[in-house]
Amino acid sequence: MIDDLPAGLTARHPVEEDHARVLGVLDAWWGGLKGQAGALERALLLPRLYFQHFTTTGFLVEGDGGEVAAFLVGFLSQTEPDAAYVHFVGVDPRLRGQGIGRVLYRAFFALAGSHGRRYVHCVTSPQNTASRGFHTRLGFTESAVKADYDGPGLDRVAFTLDLSASPLSRG
Amino acid sequence: MIDDLPAGLTARHPVEEDHARVLGVLDAWWGGLKGQAGALERALLLPRLYFQHFTTTGFLVEGDGGEVAAFLVGFLSQTEPDAAYVHFVGVDPRLRGQGIGRVLYRAFFALAGSHGRRYVHCVTSPQNTASRGFHTRLGFTESAVKADYDGPGLDRVAFTLDLSASPLSRG
Repeated sequence: MIDDLPAGLTARHPVEEDHARVLGVLDAWWGGLKGQAGALERALLLPRLYFQHFTTTGFLVEGDGGEVAAFLVGFLSQTEPDAAYVHFVGVDPRLRGQGIGRVLYRAFFALAGSHGRRYVHCVTSPQNTASRGFHTRLGFTESAVKADYDGPGLDRVAFTLDLSASPLSRG
Repeated sequence: MIDDLPAGLTARHPVEEDHARVLGVLDAWWGGLKGQAGALERALLLPRLYFQHFTTTGFLVEGDGGEVAAFLVGFLSQTEPDAAYVHFVGVDPRLRGQGIGRVLYRAFFALAGSHGRRYVHCVTSPQNTASRGFHTRLGFTESAVKADYDGPGLDRVAFTLDLSASPLSRG
């Protein structure tokens, strides 16, 4: 499905049973950020419905032993026929620096393009400088900080990539 | 758009600017349940993306003065071509008992059916007896309690309605 992952890793579309497995690694990958409250926040951001109803545009990457190595949850906009959206992406911190996140985004770009989508959107927290740098290097255009974007106190920066203008979309 | 609402109420599909308006009424409607943590939980369950990318299958009901009276957020499954999903529904507690929730669900059933969807799914918390009774009366079949369904500690009961078998789908 994705042929440019590092050796030992394979990708497939997720299934419902992967939901608990992905939630199970999030706390470790996020370094337990904000403790129990943080774990609840991450679970609420990633309800089971994404692993039931938006699986065909998502990816789960597993290692040789079947362990979760990375994932991408995204969907096609039902409002905007030219848009797709990346909702949540994670890579095992022990596997960072190998371009796995970039490979997953490029696979999503190809899928979105195959469905006639031109724009890919996503958001991140203003404090997440690693995520902001990652998206900018991928070719996303970053918005100014939008206060209370996802609710009171939930500031976000929004990213947009025009697949028709990006060399990465051909990757 | 929906012609059987109580007098003084009108429905339309939501737009992005409605996101903050809906979040703004949730705390009052839920009686401030669980305080600040509850407000954050509700915001995380209803990120802005639903008011950007899933607007064509949602409804916002407003009163004479433009105030938010009720809403329904739902979508068509991208994985299951015969399924649709109701994610979040709220009705102003001062307007309950007038069948507004039922009218919104029936409008969603009609929309889902017009897109070739046969099954409508949703979930609620086992403790939410009002919601469980409401869905059962609407014709939904309720599952047993599913422990940790949406994550650790987030038990749910799941509901399914077969539109082809329900007289409500013709309403």
